[in-house]
Amino acid sequence: MTATDREFEDLSTEQCRALLAEHHVGRLAYLDTAGVFPVVMPVNYLLVGGEVAFRTDPGSKLRAAVNSAPVAFEVDGVDLELQLGWSVLVLGFLHEVTDRAQLDQLRASPLHPWAPGPKAHYVRLTPRQLSGRQIVTSTLPSDWWG
Amino acid sequence: MTATDREFEDLSTEQCRALLAEHHVGRLAYLDTAGVFPVVMPVNYLLVGGEVAFRTDPGSKLRAAVNSAPVAFEVDGVDLELQLGWSVLVLGFLHEVTDRAQLDQLRASPLHPWAPGPKAHYVRLTPRQLSGRQIVTSTLPSDWWG
Repeated sequence: MTATDREFEDLSTEQCRALLAEHHVGRLAYLDTAGVFPVVMPVNYLLVGGEVAFRTDPGSKLRAAVNSAPVAFEVDGVDLELQLGWSVLVLGFLHEVTDRAQLDQLRASPLHPWAPGPKAHYVRLTPRQLSGRQIVTSTLPSDWWG
Repeated sequence: MTATDREFEDLSTEQCRALLAEHHVGRLAYLDTAGVFPVVMPVNYLLVGGEVAFRTDPGSKLRAAVNSAPVAFEVDGVDLELQLGWSVLVLGFLHEVTDRAQLDQLRASPLHPWAPGPKAHYVRLTPRQLSGRQIVTSTLPSDWWG
């Protein structure tokens, strides 16, 4: 397989949402406190009501990034053998969940971080921009990852 | 397995370098052209002489991020069954490779992007800061990912 029979194909908003809903590990990117370098860390998440929800602890780097910080959230999948991949990128602002009803809904949800700590705080990312793309080839169906 | 028997453990610089050398798909994060949102995209890479090297095309978003842009590069691994994960984060500045000898070395290397396009330009990231961590449990060896 050569690079020449490959193309990037944009994923539809529906495909992006479906991929976000199916997966539960993504990567959150935010600017460091000095505002110079982006920082990327894997997080467990859940798509709840169209929003990306995480749990976090006070004092963590993630917590420092809250307060309406502009962030990116990325989920991807790769097939090492076929050398194919897809990725979905969500851009938006991070907010702590303080609404009682929303908190109750999230506490009852299957959002269980693998990382240590109580992670009693819930944070949500409302997608302001949602995009995705995949590498397709002429010899494989475009839903190879499905 | 509960969250209480889990801990974060920092990876040593040697462990971070070994994980970077073993893997060839990572995620590059950089600030968008407006300087507001971080952007994250998967890239094929190769660790060459302690630097993270990619290939890119003129006009791509990645290309726009060159010119000594401060970036983050992240590689991770997750075990969905054990609910464990590790991640390595490289912070540094992105530079296009223009040195003839370095270019020859990179062209002869097994750095083959999966994405379409000639990707004749080589870009390198010199690690200014290298860190990593993993989730460990009391019941599994700390090199569960090895």
